[in-house]
Amino acid sequence: MTHDAQRLRTLLTQPRIARLIGARDGLTAKIAEQVGFDGLWASSFELSATHGLPDISLLGMTDYLTAAVAINACASVPVLADCDTGFGGRANIAHLVKRYESAGIAGVCIEDKRFPKRNSFLDGRHVLENAEEFAARIGIAKSAQAGEDFVVVARLESFIAGMGIDETMRRAHMYADMGADAVMVHSRKCGPEEIIEFLDRWEQRLPVVVVPTTYPNWTEAEAERHGVSMVIYANYGLRASVRAIRDAMLSIIAHGAAASLENPVASVNEIFDLVGMSQWEALHSDTAAQLAEDQATMTPEADR
Amino acid sequence: MTHDAQRLRTLLTQPRIARLIGARDGLTAKIAEQVGFDGLWASSFELSATHGLPDISLLGMTDYLTAAVAINACASVPVLADCDTGFGGRANIAHLVKRYESAGIAGVCIEDKRFPKRNSFLDGRHVLENAEEFAARIGIAKSAQAGEDFVVVARLESFIAGMGIDETMRRAHMYADMGADAVMVHSRKCGPEEIIEFLDRWEQRLPVVVVPTTYPNWTEAEAERHGVSMVIYANYGLRASVRAIRDAMLSIIAHGAAASLENPVASVNEIFDLVGMSQWEALHSDTAAQLAEDQATMTPEADR
Amino acid sequence: MTHDAQRLRTLLTQPRIARLIGARDGLTAKIAEQVGFDGLWASSFELSATHGLPDISLLGMTDYLTAAVAINACASVPVLADCDTGFGGRANIAHLVKRYESAGIAGVCIEDKRFPKRNSFLDGRHVLENAEEFAARIGIAKSAQAGEDFVVVARLESFIAGMGIDETMRRAHMYADMGADAVMVHSRKCGPEEIIEFLDRWEQRLPVVVVPTTYPNWTEAEAERHGVSMVIYANYGLRASVRAIRDAMLSIIAHGAAASLENPVASVNEIFDLVGMSQWEALHSDTAAQLAEDQATMTPEADR
Amino acid sequence: MTHDAQRLRTLLTQPRIARLIGARDGLTAKIAEQVGFDGLWASSFELSATHGLPDISLLGMTDYLTAAVAINACASVPVLADCDTGFGGRANIAHLVKRYESAGIAGVCIEDKRFPKRNSFLDGRHVLENAEEFAARIGIAKSAQAGEDFVVVARLESFIAGMGIDETMRRAHMYADMGADAVMVHSRKCGPEEIIEFLDRWEQRLPVVVVPTTYPNWTEAEAERHGVSMVIYANYGLRASVRAIRDAMLSIIAHGAAASLENPVASVNEIFDLVGMSQWEALHSDTAAQLAEDQATMTPEADR
Repeated sequence: MTHDAQRLRTLLTQPRIARLIGARDGLTAKIAEQVGFDGLWASSFELSATHGLPDISLLGMTDYLTAAVAINACASVPVLADCDTGFGGRANIAHLVKRYESAGIAGVCIEDKRFPKRNSFLDGRHVLENAEEFAARIGIAKSAQAGEDFVVVARLESFIAGMGIDETMRRAHMYADMGADAVMVHSRKCGPEEIIEFLDRWEQRLPVVVVPTTYPNWTEAEAERHGVSMVIYANYGLRASVRAIRDAMLSIIAHGAAASLENPVASVNEIFDLVGMSQWEALHSDTAAQLAEDQATMTPEADR
Repeated sequence: MTHDAQRLRTLLTQPRIARLIGARDGLTAKIAEQVGFDGLWASSFELSATHGLPDISLLGMTDYLTAAVAINACASVPVLADCDTGFGGRANIAHLVKRYESAGIAGVCIEDKRFPKRNSFLDGRHVLENAEEFAARIGIAKSAQAGEDFVVVARLESFIAGMGIDETMRRAHMYADMGADAVMVHSRKCGPEEIIEFLDRWEQRLPVVVVPTTYPNWTEAEAERHGVSMVIYANYGLRASVRAIRDAMLSIIAHGAAASLENPVASVNEIFDLVGMSQWEALHSDTAAQLAEDQATMTPEADR
Repeated sequence: MTHDAQRLRTLLTQPRIARLIGARDGLTAKIAEQVGFDGLWASSFELSATHGLPDISLLGMTDYLTAAVAINACASVPVLADCDTGFGGRANIAHLVKRYESAGIAGVCIEDKRFPKRNSFLDGRHVLENAEEFAARIGIAKSAQAGEDFVVVARLESFIAGMGIDETMRRAHMYADMGADAVMVHSRKCGPEEIIEFLDRWEQRLPVVVVPTTYPNWTEAEAERHGVSMVIYANYGLRASVRAIRDAMLSIIAHGAAASLENPVASVNEIFDLVGMSQWEALHSDTAAQLAEDQATMTPEADR
Repeated sequence: MTHDAQRLRTLLTQPRIARLIGARDGLTAKIAEQVGFDGLWASSFELSATHGLPDISLLGMTDYLTAAVAINACASVPVLADCDTGFGGRANIAHLVKRYESAGIAGVCIEDKRFPKRNSFLDGRHVLENAEEFAARIGIAKSAQAGEDFVVVARLESFIAGMGIDETMRRAHMYADMGADAVMVHSRKCGPEEIIEFLDRWEQRLPVVVVPTTYPNWTEAEAERHGVSMVIYANYGLRASVRAIRDAMLSIIAHGAAASLENPVASVNEIFDLVGMSQWEALHSDTAAQLAEDQATMTPEADR
């Protein structure tokens, strides 16, 4: 438990930029870890879409926590959980921190929009929470954690709400004053200009996390040069699946059979490998029981 | 509730062969329905893999039912739920039928392997439940349902267990005698020979369901000609996702940015469309409230 | 599904006053039904307390729905689910109605406080939702239901918020105009004066539900005379349990044994009876299989 | 996480006998801790009954784990989770240990009956798992845990199955050889004779846990004298509730009002106190925000 939180903390503070990727379930988590990502983002957008729902605060803490636990169970890299606006008011913030921390999740990210929120990539009005109130919530979040390592990331939605750099700086410093472990600064511009302006003025007071969904040409190398600590590729797994699932289904309908899918799909054996079938099956061999017995025998009395 | 079960029943009995596809969540369900499938298969293989687990009875009824409900909530086509061996003994069968039926799921499929089962595509030994006992369970399943429409499919694993056509016929007739609504005959041969032999001797006593994972060249047209009522493409959505997710992730790692993914992914707006974002957002307009008001006004007094 | 909703509707409209009691789980539901209550109230206060949490919007829709389904599975009488303020904004209301209705719950009650709410028996400030907005939500709730029978009760918290009879009447008529099936009028006064004043001016435009927690001397007979359609004893099961559990535990600690509990507890066999153990066990007899077979044989071909 | 497991380990090994009590939810956990119990038993009998179900393996691992987590969230004393027979075969055992341990539960108890099991207090046949197979499962359980502290208790059902002291001793030693941290020896005799015979021959090889449901006159003092390490009062909270809930409900029905309940029930304010309402409410005061701010300010930079 502590371990994962420490590792997330290290990812935020190490010199090299860290790479997280959105995961919506244990399977995606396993693929992400094999491929080499440093950690996982339990994305509210991905989880809502998985339930066939828009990302507008329809799912609640239990839904998100259940998913984060399922993701965490499949990964040795740490999970940063997207907790939207915190699911309500101050008490909800304290509650979520207690529950996520005791479930072994490494950290949470809470954004300064008002509940119920709308997904940040939607056009139209985005209503921010009062800055003083949100800062108080960050303080409450940090007070609610039991250990020292659990990570609370304060997410700034002021650019999304069209409020400009001054309000963004003001808020970022308020959240830092209240104990945030890092800030995520979010932008839906087609280039990284807003982000860069923030980074220049922020002077690395705390680690900065970015989500370059709308400015995908900005490379990790450039981001690192500007002082970004962590980049999150928030929803590519989901978006890749949707396209691939639809293509496979259309092909089946078109051919009246699954023989000639246009794009290759993983074999059943690949899935077995991904979920570690052979290790699970090995539990049924006598050897497994023997190994267990050997190990039991070797365990010092004191630990039994 | 009744409605979906009636529709599943119709799919099994109509002259045209019906097409189901495996779904592991609400999102896949929405894509499947758009693409034109007749119904959804809540697959234990897909659901286990989604949790990063092998398909060897590690998940329980609650896990499967929760997933089936989430899938059903996103689809107007009926859901047939893969219930493995029924999660234990006779009481578990009665319990699952009550719960799935009252949750509005159209039907369940129960297989005649012994709990805990191993996925049918695994090499090695597959242990069947005693035929008389499994037949009794089918009787208990049918006795447990409250309405007339709920569908119970008895799945024959005798080919998987290497037991040949005679035992398969014997079991199929026993299950039919006890009230099964359809039989699923499963094979892991690379061609449809076992299935065809079964169909020839079965003479359409009850509707037959097939899952051509290992014989994908057998078309729906051929299957229909041999008397198959329903074909299930059990795990293509999952397998397509895995490949696409991995490709997208590898590309991000390779480029240190998400700009130039080799294979196209769905846009964020495509996801918004898929989950019906604009209809949900419309609830916030004054017009929506007005429409609601109009409708309320038009509702006859008696219904309020 | 329809059935339970119809029965709840009948309870609201029949001449005789109907009696609901708070239930927090399937066990309480079974006792309540044996004892003779007409229906069950899936209380947010009871469910929160069951989780060791205060009733201040910490649990979300999934938590409440899961509990309501578990309660409903154990009862043949209908369940009215306490949905607090609706878990957010307009979209949350539409979402909850779809989910509760398709899960077979007979109806929901939504209150006109602002999210996150505080339990109505707490001293201090209670903030109401804007009346026009809440009325729009009632309209949205009624538009979201698929069938005709699902019941939406609009709960008036204006007395709780100290706003008096005029605002209460104004709100009640607005909610009725938007299609509410009944109104619940809530008071924390030590007598029924506020309720009676409301009833006198309401003139039975729609059925009225009351929760006499703070005025327990007001009998059903008196309430019926004043035009109340339904009385809910909201939290007595919970409160009785807490006292009894504590007494039993204190006695065990005091005696260092469980032999001489001051108050009698149910025997293990009583629990077996309550959960219908003998019927479940009977599934394992050959007779059960035989009966199932007989029934299967008697089922007309058309239904198989 | 580790902390609770260490404490459970200490309870088993300390000279003084430890006292656990059955809890079925967070509320019971809070009462038990206030009253002074050393730990909590997440009982399958209580949890099944809470769902209105008999204790015959109808609930699965997810149901039990969810309940154990909810109980654990409300208690600072450790939770020992009743895991029945382990929910299936060897793989299920490995799976449950990983999940319970990572969820922060202190330990699990697994019994040597065959799945699906019947509650041990039922008359009739109880089928034991093969001793060698069950011993292998204990070895697998111990191999599956990640840390050193997680506790695995092997529960002996041989007396329940009518197999006598020799088979019980043989099994106990086999399970100890495979690394069990303690054994629970279960009896449904009306006195402690079987238990005492076991204790005499066991000579404290490992800590022994007993559940004196059918021999409640045997005091902790006597049990301690015979070498028992832990006594579990497995189901008194449940049984006390059932009686109290029924009495309260009958009284309401009889009087047509809740005014004159025969037995006193907890007040609403008592419930508020139990769930810590005032601490939660205090989060909304400016003082809370101020305190949070102070604390944040005092936290060393290194920890942020």
